[in-house]
Amino acid sequence: MANRPFDLLNEAIGKEVLVMLKGNIQVRGTLKAFDVHMNIVLESAEQLENGEAKTKYGKLMVRGDNVILISP
Amino acid sequence: MANRPFDLLNEAIGKEVLVMLKGNIQVRGTLKAFDVHMNIVLESAEQLENGEAKTKYGKLMVRGDNVILISP
Amino acid sequence: MANRPFDLLNEAIGKEVLVMLKGNIQVRGTLKAFDVHMNIVLESAEQLENGEAKTKYGKLMVRGDNVILISP
Amino acid sequence: MANRPFDLLNEAIGKEVLVMLKGNIQVRGTLKAFDVHMNIVLESAEQLENGEAKTKYGKLMVRGDNVILISP
Amino acid sequence: MANRPFDLLNEAIGKEVLVMLKGNIQVRGTLKAFDVHMNIVLESAEQLENGEAKTKYGKLMVRGDNVILISP
Amino acid sequence: MANRPFDLLNEAIGKEVLVMLKGNIQVRGTLKAFDVHMNIVLESAEQLENGEAKTKYGKLMVRGDNVILISP
Amino acid sequence: MANRPFDLLNEAIGKEVLVMLKGNIQVRGTLKAFDVHMNIVLESAEQLENGEAKTKYGKLMVRGDNVILISP
Repeated sequence: MANRPFDLLNEAIGKEVLVMLKGNIQVRGTLKAFDVHMNIVLESAEQLENGEAKTKYGKLMVRGDNVILISP
Repeated sequence: MANRPFDLLNEAIGKEVLVMLKGNIQVRGTLKAFDVHMNIVLESAEQLENGEAKTKYGKLMVRGDNVILISP
Repeated sequence: MANRPFDLLNEAIGKEVLVMLKGNIQVRGTLKAFDVHMNIVLESAEQLENGEAKTKYGKLMVRGDNVILISP
Repeated sequence: MANRPFDLLNEAIGKEVLVMLKGNIQVRGTLKAFDVHMNIVLESAEQLENGEAKTKYGKLMVRGDNVILISP
Repeated sequence: MANRPFDLLNEAIGKEVLVMLKGNIQVRGTLKAFDVHMNIVLESAEQLENGEAKTKYGKLMVRGDNVILISP
Repeated sequence: MANRPFDLLNEAIGKEVLVMLKGNIQVRGTLKAFDVHMNIVLESAEQLENGEAKTKYGKLMVRGDNVILISP
Repeated sequence: MANRPFDLLNEAIGKEVLVMLKGNIQVRGTLKAFDVHMNIVLESAEQLENGEAKTKYGKLMVRGDNVILISP
């Protein structure tokens, strides 16, 4: 059980996560790294449109202040 | 009675809360964790549309700066 | 007479206040708690639409950065 | 003559001011209090629409980050 | 020649400046005061619409975070 | 070669730069000064619309938080 | 493998990156420099529209708070 919100990200390292960003952007990929600003790095990432993969990225860094929610 | 706003979140740990986010997004789930930035973790969460469940998430982390209001 | 803006909130504890939020959202309820970020807790709260009660909440926490104005 | 911007607010305490807020909102009232964040308290306040009084408030606290301009 | 941006404002004290604000608002007036947040006080100020004076203000305080650009 | 982003601005002092701002505003002029907030002063500046000069300014101060990108 | 998000940028110095910015702006170029604010300098940069090169820039500085994501 997570006691602090960032524990959820710690547990999700190496696993697939879905990230919803401001501006109606969704990305999905394997969580490789994150920091206290919620900047995150995904591998084998793809940007989704209406739930479908639209653009594929080998690696991706998301700036934390765009994040709305993250789900492992 | 809550004397400081975050007392309300402390009392709501383990209970269902409704969270209204910027961008007309609503999520509902069991409050598992929160921090001083109002980052929150929900379990058994679902995103609502017009009050109806639209997407289900096992676990969900919401970045605090998206929060408009939280109701236990 | 209020000498500092937050004195107005101190005087309003236990009384009904109207809170206008960004995104054209209005809530009304009994002010139970607030902090320096203007996070506030309301009890017996309701969300208004065109001045009419639309949704009722037992308790409600509003994140301070959404607040436009508060009137006791 | 004001040498620092906040001197203008100091001189305006007890006088009527017009406050233009983000989101095309205008309020007018007697300036009772302000702080370094430009949070302000008005008395005998009214919200304007097209220069006409629309809603009257006994007392009103405006969160500073909504302020565009203030004119005594 | 200005070596630091705020030197330009120092040189403009007592002179007329044009200030372009977010939300497509323009004000013009005599610069009386400013601070490090770019809060500014104008005298004999007027709000412009399509380059024409629309509303006149004796004195005006602009909150700095609305400023896009200032031209002496 | 720039090793830190602000080195690019240091090298551009006295040269013409193009500055793209939020709100679809572009200005061009000789870079005279900048600071760590990316506040910048331009001389012989002009505001562009669709790549054409629209408004000319002798001197111009741009508040840094409006900047999207700067190109020497 | 990146352990901290900025490691990804360190590894990408001298390589081509795609940068997605707020306001539906995309730029691509060789990463020359970055700092902790995610301010970045690109060389041989171009702005994209619908995936096609639209405007070319020799050098380009992007202010970090506009960044949504960066992909090497």
